[in-house]
Amino acid sequence: MFEGLETPRLILDAERLERNAVHMRNRCAELGVTLRPHLKTAKSIDVARIAADGGQGPITVSTLAEAEYFAAAGWRNILYTTAIVPAKLARADRIQRAHGARLLFVVDDRDAATAIGKAAVSLGARFGVLIEVDCGEHRSGVEPASEALVAIADAIHACAPHLELTGVMTHAGHSYAFDEPAPIRALAEVERQAAVASAELLRARGYPCPIVSVGSTPTTLFAEHLSGVTEVRAGIYLFWDLSQLSRGMCAEDDIAVSVLATVIGHQHSGPSLILDAGALALSKDIGANRFMPEAGYGLVCDPVTLERLGSLAVTTVHQEHGAVPVPDESWFARLPIGSMVRILPNHACLTCAAYASYNVLHAGKATEEWPRIGGW
Amino acid sequence: MFEGLETPRLILDAERLERNAVHMRNRCAELGVTLRPHLKTAKSIDVARIAADGGQGPITVSTLAEAEYFAAAGWRNILYTTAIVPAKLARADRIQRAHGARLLFVVDDRDAATAIGKAAVSLGARFGVLIEVDCGEHRSGVEPASEALVAIADAIHACAPHLELTGVMTHAGHSYAFDEPAPIRALAEVERQAAVASAELLRARGYPCPIVSVGSTPTTLFAEHLSGVTEVRAGIYLFWDLSQLSRGMCAEDDIAVSVLATVIGHQHSGPSLILDAGALALSKDIGANRFMPEAGYGLVCDPVTLERLGSLAVTTVHQEHGAVPVPDESWFARLPIGSMVRILPNHACLTCAAYASYNVLHAGKATEEWPRIGGW
Repeated sequence: MFEGLETPRLILDAERLERNAVHMRNRCAELGVTLRPHLKTAKSIDVARIAADGGQGPITVSTLAEAEYFAAAGWRNILYTTAIVPAKLARADRIQRAHGARLLFVVDDRDAATAIGKAAVSLGARFGVLIEVDCGEHRSGVEPASEALVAIADAIHACAPHLELTGVMTHAGHSYAFDEPAPIRALAEVERQAAVASAELLRARGYPCPIVSVGSTPTTLFAEHLSGVTEVRAGIYLFWDLSQLSRGMCAEDDIAVSVLATVIGHQHSGPSLILDAGALALSKDIGANRFMPEAGYGLVCDPVTLERLGSLAVTTVHQEHGAVPVPDESWFARLPIGSMVRILPNHACLTCAAYASYNVLHAGKATEEWPRIGGW
Repeated sequence: MFEGLETPRLILDAERLERNAVHMRNRCAELGVTLRPHLKTAKSIDVARIAADGGQGPITVSTLAEAEYFAAAGWRNILYTTAIVPAKLARADRIQRAHGARLLFVVDDRDAATAIGKAAVSLGARFGVLIEVDCGEHRSGVEPASEALVAIADAIHACAPHLELTGVMTHAGHSYAFDEPAPIRALAEVERQAAVASAELLRARGYPCPIVSVGSTPTTLFAEHLSGVTEVRAGIYLFWDLSQLSRGMCAEDDIAVSVLATVIGHQHSGPSLILDAGALALSKDIGANRFMPEAGYGLVCDPVTLERLGSLAVTTVHQEHGAVPVPDESWFARLPIGSMVRILPNHACLTCAAYASYNVLHAGKATEEWPRIGGW
């Protein structure tokens, strides 16, 4: 299946990806909201097309490099969710002008809004802006439905038409703290209310606020309803990973990305298999271990079936070496030096970031390669 | 100093780099050994030139991508220290032929040696091979000065001239477990003896074994002598990082790489600064925390002087966001949104891996950009 591929490589199962994409589209249709897929995980035009069922609808990105890449490929409606600062505005403006795209920014501070507005004026540029509200993660965002929120809206409006207040957004990133539906469902409602109440306050003060954006894959899956919300941002659902599996968000056979690696050594002290996939090929993220302590840096699977090999996991990583303890040396005959395995990743966003492309598995063949964008 | 740079960026201080390179060259001259710098950290032609004082002497790499990159730039003597497998030999052969370079491989298994030899024969290729011995880290390598070692030598020799047994190597990676000189000095002697005794046994069996290679930055710094050793592999000394600082291997003002980031938010719940440098820009490595628990994901410094700002550290990372708790909100006036900081990295090898280039700081100016190679 993988003859001729030099490891480590990032393998993407196209059928699983398609199924995951369909499932989330159906879920959003059921909720009556637009899906604005977050492409910080996939960073790929080919994946984005599948996420949007062949279209080029609204998307979410986390870097201006992604914004530029997707704009150049024809996407027009791009929400950049890392708060913008004036020094990055000239590039954002170039991206808009070169490709006819429209970038939406997020802002959570009045002075920052004013500074961005001033920079937009001096560029002669126009940008859409969403105000970020904090629904409890306490990473970023202003208090929902607060006077501080209105003050930011006023600051944005003062820079019209260079800044256009387009709505509100929030992110329930703390939904990852749970591995059962009930608290996630409760959090989805907190997230929804934070966004909707903020939009209602702004409307009461005369700002139309057409976009009401929420998002995290778990809250989207478990929300009872999303009344008042217009769109959902979710991304990891395209690929899934052990962090999501450990929280009960997906099944093991939903995980669409894996790392193809080769056994390059047999360590008799231990004993352990040594793989050519270490800290760079897998990342040092161990987010799955909170609810799945056996996950290590990744679970070791058969390269063809992607079924787990016993309970083998990568437990130690060096830069280019991964060590997989085995119960006994009979495993050395089963997995001789030169044989391949596939590893289910802990956190797909970080694992994928090390690779310049996907080797795409389709109908049992890995003949296609899809590029992805990295950096900033 | 950094006007016009969009963050996050990887900053390399050229003066510190030069000083670190000189220091290690002097140390190796004092020990009477050749320095074969390990370029898995730097992955840069410009840095490699400084490491070798302008020359193109022997180097160490961890991926074939690095081997290809350095061979194309004129390096001829390249040791690839991740154990090779037959499937990677055709590419290695192309690298040798295209650029007139010579690759040295490491092998620690008799059957693997035979398989590699068979592949070399079928390619009509010739490679040098070092046998890796295990001086106690138990990652890879055969028992030093053992009959298993001799059996590998016999297997290599049976494939002459396609494989040429060129010597032995070992790596005391477990030297990172200590933060004081005495146990590292003891380990350096264990490392030395493992390599030298193995070379002596092979010579007694008729194999000349010209290269006796050891290496880790800590053991090189603290070895009492390296009698019988011909070369040392070390890499992190070029840049240093918090992991090395926390172990007493360098001073804080030796650290030559840092991440330039921008304050993109003020979180009042906490309170915290939010930076545009998160898990991808810093990596999730927290290796410094064993001996320096306050290191978090990196220490926050003044962007110009690179002096620490109080005891500020990045304590939480999301994909593109880093959170820095501050003692009180007076820090928000000191570091307004849009201001820059520099972050000393936990583990330079992993942090640098996310970037396609260095912005090089020279005489107080960051005008130059040096590319680096990634992937495999």
